[in-house]
Amino acid sequence: MNRKAKGSNAERELVRMFWDAGWAAIRVAGSGSAKFPNPDVLAGNRKRRVAVECKTIHDIKKYLSSSDISQIRIFSEKFGAEPWIGMRFDSQQWFFIALEDLAETGESNFVVSLELARRKGLTFSEFIGNFNQSRNGE
Amino acid sequence: MNRKAKGSNAERELVRMFWDAGWAAIRVAGSGSAKFPNPDVLAGNRKRRVAVECKTIHDIKKYLSSSDISQIRIFSEKFGAEPWIGMRFDSQQWFFIALEDLAETGESNFVVSLELARRKGLTFSEFIGNFNQSRNGE
Repeated sequence: MNRKAKGSNAERELVRMFWDAGWAAIRVAGSGSAKFPNPDVLAGNRKRRVAVECKTIHDIKKYLSSSDISQIRIFSEKFGAEPWIGMRFDSQQWFFIALEDLAETGESNFVVSLELARRKGLTFSEFIGNFNQSRNGE
Repeated sequence: MNRKAKGSNAERELVRMFWDAGWAAIRVAGSGSAKFPNPDVLAGNRKRRVAVECKTIHDIKKYLSSSDISQIRIFSEKFGAEPWIGMRFDSQQWFFIALEDLAETGESNFVVSLELARRKGLTFSEFIGNFNQSRNGE
């Protein structure tokens, strides 16, 4: 399976996870090549909307371009959604990382390692459950 | 141009109109054949989210199946968006119609005519401006 197909499969997996958890979710058409800033997956549950840039990773770290980051940030600000990076390392669960938790490399790129994902990232249930806790505490 | 390509072009046109108006918008991947209920276009401007089922029409009326309607309704309820039908009649502007303004045919289908679209539908600027007016009035 090529890289693009693997990425699409990971996005489909994530969309299904959201639906199974009672959220609505969609994959964005042409998200890699669109004229406008776009996330890969957009999900919502009436109270909360999340825009996810999805990365499948075959190494223990992944570099993200500042363009990747600014796309998800611009889209999310305009739309009204939380920007997240969804990382799927080989044979690992998903980790969801807030933009401010990405490590800058100093060359206007960003890097996320498996170690950083485990330390700062949320698992899927934390990611979606997190909200319920904060809402209940309001 | 075949029917599907014409539909996709209409969706791209609508996405561009939203971006030009300061909204963020995306086309949904595989919206015609997805496993989960999906709109064709999803747009937001921080305060408001709209899910649009797009129809291009080469006649003076168009039938919509109850499945079309229930897909857009279910998605919008779960996600937290307003459900709308976007109609693009040949050589006409877009009209946006609320689900409750569609006429039932009596066979669990719905019909929208150019006459109904003109009478009950909103133009694009009404559709997006409508919100600003109601917000200003709050």
